[in-house]
Amino acid sequence: MAIVDVTIIPIGTQEPSVSTYVADIQKVLEQYKDKVNVQLTPMSTLIEGELEDLFEVVQAIHEVPFENGVQRVATNIRIDDRRDKKRKMQDKVQAVQEKLTEE
Amino acid sequence: MAIVDVTIIPIGTQEPSVSTYVADIQKVLEQYKDKVNVQLTPMSTLIEGELEDLFEVVQAIHEVPFENGVQRVATNIRIDDRRDKKRKMQDKVQAVQEKLTEE
Amino acid sequence: MAIVDVTIIPIGTQEPSVSTYVADIQKVLEQYKDKVNVQLTPMSTLIEGELEDLFEVVQAIHEVPFENGVQRVATNIRIDDRRDKKRKMQDKVQAVQEKLTEE
Amino acid sequence: MAIVDVTIIPIGTQEPSVSTYVADIQKVLEQYKDKVNVQLTPMSTLIEGELEDLFEVVQAIHEVPFENGVQRVATNIRIDDRRDKKRKMQDKVQAVQEKLTEE
Repeated sequence: MAIVDVTIIPIGTQEPSVSTYVADIQKVLEQYKDKVNVQLTPMSTLIEGELEDLFEVVQAIHEVPFENGVQRVATNIRIDDRRDKKRKMQDKVQAVQEKLTEE
Repeated sequence: MAIVDVTIIPIGTQEPSVSTYVADIQKVLEQYKDKVNVQLTPMSTLIEGELEDLFEVVQAIHEVPFENGVQRVATNIRIDDRRDKKRKMQDKVQAVQEKLTEE
Repeated sequence: MAIVDVTIIPIGTQEPSVSTYVADIQKVLEQYKDKVNVQLTPMSTLIEGELEDLFEVVQAIHEVPFENGVQRVATNIRIDDRRDKKRKMQDKVQAVQEKLTEE
Repeated sequence: MAIVDVTIIPIGTQEPSVSTYVADIQKVLEQYKDKVNVQLTPMSTLIEGELEDLFEVVQAIHEVPFENGVQRVATNIRIDDRRDKKRKMQDKVQAVQEKLTEE
């Protein structure tokens, strides 16, 4: 299991708001909900799953703005892939919070 | 008001876990809580505030792993700075959710 | 044609230098030289090609540190995908330089 | 000495090309040439110097699209800060190339 943190920025959209594109991306992500877990944050979309699936999903959502007529897309992806132990998205936040409270 | 999304990766740490460094960063962020709002996600730390303050805070937390003996740090910062309207972190998620439900 | 800009950071490596991993990644990239163009910069590896191929190549090089015994890898990818016109890596730098000299 | 790798994406620009903004950013960078070294790549601008100066310069160039009327800017920054030895941008590429040829 790995986690990816993705932002997909449409370029040349005429207006500063991109929430329509983000909403369309969430709809595409719905189609993958058997394979991956998704969390929307104020700055990006986090997706958790098998690495192979994550690459497939990222490629699918990167296409969304093009399907909406945009001609250029800047996608930014951070992959966190840890293989020495199983761990889920929520575990990561919890590990930090435990360190903060145990002192 | 702008929002930054920061990851601070210590390099050369001998072990794969970095939660100790992340916890120390949260403690430093506590000192800035009058100036900025902070949200910890499974992949990064989101910080909201005036741009000038955000740069100061990012520079402060980038130092944390060095203070803990690390010799190299890879910091990744995404800034989302929108000046046509006031809007907070939570508003961004809500704008997407409204688009999803109104259909 | 799209361009990706990739950094692959091994976590838990005991020492600050990561050039051995970067060199191993360049060797893997050699195997894809019929499909993609590669440029090494002081901060990342740029790869140009068809989007489908780029995803395949990025997934291949993301595996390199794991093959060398690392247990955690943080990969950062910026994709610049422009579909209104054909343009190569060098064209982008040139477009900026022309704007600078024409004034 | 640290190195930053910066992309500054104007959002809501009506057209896919952003080379005018990049050219304006290069002009602002010219003003800092006594303090920092700059290298333009096909995907970003690399800037090398003292960390304090780098933060100042990044903040200055992040303002450029706003001065040109853009209302939203997405800036992405990778910082590579290594303190166990002095090393310049070109040294990093050379360290990799030496590893590749010595085998």
